[in-house]
Amino acid sequence: MKNLLVAQSGGPSAAINATVVGVVERALSGQEVDRIYGAVNGIAGVFDERFIDLGERLDSPEKLRTLYNTPAAALGSCRMKLKGDDPAQFEKLLRIFRKHEIAYFIYIGGNDSMDTVYQLSRYLKQQGIDDIFVMGAPKTIDNDLMLTDHCPGYGSAAKYLATTFAELRRDCDVYYVPAVTIVEVMGRNAGWLTAASALSRLNGEDGPNLIYLCETVFDSEKFLSDVKGLLETEKAVLVAVSEGIKDAKGAYICEKFSSGAVDAFGHTQLSGTAKALECLVRDRIGCKARSIELSLMQRCAGHLASATDLQESRMLGMTAANLCISGVSGKMATIERLSDEPYSVRYGCADIERIANEEKKVPLEWISPAGNDVTPELLAYMKPLIQGEESQKYENGVPLHITLY
Amino acid sequence: MKNLLVAQSGGPSAAINATVVGVVERALSGQEVDRIYGAVNGIAGVFDERFIDLGERLDSPEKLRTLYNTPAAALGSCRMKLKGDDPAQFEKLLRIFRKHEIAYFIYIGGNDSMDTVYQLSRYLKQQGIDDIFVMGAPKTIDNDLMLTDHCPGYGSAAKYLATTFAELRRDCDVYYVPAVTIVEVMGRNAGWLTAASALSRLNGEDGPNLIYLCETVFDSEKFLSDVKGLLETEKAVLVAVSEGIKDAKGAYICEKFSSGAVDAFGHTQLSGTAKALECLVRDRIGCKARSIELSLMQRCAGHLASATDLQESRMLGMTAANLCISGVSGKMATIERLSDEPYSVRYGCADIERIANEEKKVPLEWISPAGNDVTPELLAYMKPLIQGEESQKYENGVPLHITLY
Repeated sequence: MKNLLVAQSGGPSAAINATVVGVVERALSGQEVDRIYGAVNGIAGVFDERFIDLGERLDSPEKLRTLYNTPAAALGSCRMKLKGDDPAQFEKLLRIFRKHEIAYFIYIGGNDSMDTVYQLSRYLKQQGIDDIFVMGAPKTIDNDLMLTDHCPGYGSAAKYLATTFAELRRDCDVYYVPAVTIVEVMGRNAGWLTAASALSRLNGEDGPNLIYLCETVFDSEKFLSDVKGLLETEKAVLVAVSEGIKDAKGAYICEKFSSGAVDAFGHTQLSGTAKALECLVRDRIGCKARSIELSLMQRCAGHLASATDLQESRMLGMTAANLCISGVSGKMATIERLSDEPYSVRYGCADIERIANEEKKVPLEWISPAGNDVTPELLAYMKPLIQGEESQKYENGVPLHITLY
Repeated sequence: MKNLLVAQSGGPSAAINATVVGVVERALSGQEVDRIYGAVNGIAGVFDERFIDLGERLDSPEKLRTLYNTPAAALGSCRMKLKGDDPAQFEKLLRIFRKHEIAYFIYIGGNDSMDTVYQLSRYLKQQGIDDIFVMGAPKTIDNDLMLTDHCPGYGSAAKYLATTFAELRRDCDVYYVPAVTIVEVMGRNAGWLTAASALSRLNGEDGPNLIYLCETVFDSEKFLSDVKGLLETEKAVLVAVSEGIKDAKGAYICEKFSSGAVDAFGHTQLSGTAKALECLVRDRIGCKARSIELSLMQRCAGHLASATDLQESRMLGMTAANLCISGVSGKMATIERLSDEPYSVRYGCADIERIANEEKKVPLEWISPAGNDVTPELLAYMKPLIQGEESQKYENGVPLHITLY
């Protein structure tokens, strides 16, 4: 028997299940794979042998289609990293693989998950094992994986952000009292998601007035001056900001302005970045200010998934499975962009050791010289990724999802 | 000339522009109205004579259709109430109406806006003016207007909440570490919106484990005991809570647990209700806790509008305009529910003085005896209101909106 095992890891996204669909479809399309297993809760679930038979659970096109449109990680996730210096871990994994006759293992995830692919494939190679193949499939709304043009999940999160900023702009413009609305977007080290707020301008609307990515130093005085300048002509100022912005000394803004804040229980309270800036604006400018955190909604909004993103996610699952079945190991499936307009891509793979634990940031030349907006080049990069509306199936007025375990 | 004036007031919603569409369509469908004006920024804009010609701005079916799907208030809004004891205000309004030959005035809004309709219609009646007619059209995501089965805007906000809670449930279930996620929903005095989180269960999913509406007393110890009980069997506890929950003494929970918190600038910081409960859970239970505020997104998510809600909003605009043109004044257009299943309604009107400044709360018998969930009767009431997906038109991957001024 040659069985295939697929698992998911890291933060949820609207597109990670489409990758599982691609893996399953590729496995079903040939004679190489006997059983298709899913591990529950990523590599942690592999250690616990929490396997489900995906061939049985997904025994109809309708179920595959519903999984394609289900957000988060239908196989569950984990935040576990393998310890490179602990051979017992790898020996245990190998025993489990042998016991369940697993020849192909596809791990879907971000930087940390690609480290698992790297460690495991390296161990198998060192042991001279040539009948188990391990492949990574990228997934991260952060869009920060190296050697792939972009990451599955990012396009859908970007479409959520574009839509939400377009709608928030509408909401903010309704009143005529000067007000500053600061919206915090996920991203500790990379500003790709925050940049996507600019996509809300694609139909000629204003979108956010100011955009601050975490790649550049955040200068509070410059920020206040930017806001004050806008308030001279605008009633409603809308600001997009990465959660991970830092000052010139490298201190997170959220920590800098939260210092001293204590909650009712006496604990130091770390406010969010947007909340910190809201307090700053109220204190220093004195106008109405509000902060919004887009929190988990930006990563699990399956109803707003980008059709382009879901299709690419499926294709990357297929590509990873196909390469794995063909005997490739220790690589991650990738997307290479051939052109922006018309948008065209090609699927391939890259060495996992050049991806694991690395982060791809927004190039500084794609940030406006004033550090408070994105350039047309960045817009051109992002635009194709949010195209197309994936028709979410609704039942009883609510999105229809599938539960696998 | 007999002109019609329409204006919008109060908080934005995904459906308020559909009501303008209904007003315009009714005005265009007969010979009674010469010009259709929109006042910018509600009654404040009427005082400033900020009028736009809606016949010109909406001169194609495409534009009407785009307005139908544009969230927030395309005519702008205001938070201004008329002073009943200031005749000069009413005299000024009358002069402006005469100057622009306005015979029909439709005001779309919530409780406060209906007070404007009440005051103005009463003044006109007292002055014996019988050629100017004033009608209210309901709008509030809060669903708290009297004498109408429900309010336009509520169904779309409820659909946003149902969808978002279904997606957040997915996201929370991905991990296996005990965690409590508390989601704050708008509603200072009425829990209709928070109750809508239960609609996320309509397809058999778990939805929120606990739902606390502001109609009942919030007992922190009972809450902690509810959460602890769930953590014995559940990994992820998802809680929906009204922003306006209060303790037995009538103190807002957000104020109670924020007392003492001071921001970096020395100002007392009033945290949100969910944030307060997050701190409480972390302090008393010690597990991972997170809070989410759905903030403005819940009221402006046009891309998730309920088809039922938009159509009813349009019909209420038509009804209000039709009654106004027929010589009715000092009333608000209403919805009467004939049956839940099949869902059926009838449009009518009710006396404005019985609506203005009143609030309709969730009946206590629709809240579970334990005070931490809704009853099947409340689910049956809400369910029809979120049915149908209004096909938002996208361009460049972003919702297409219209700008009127």
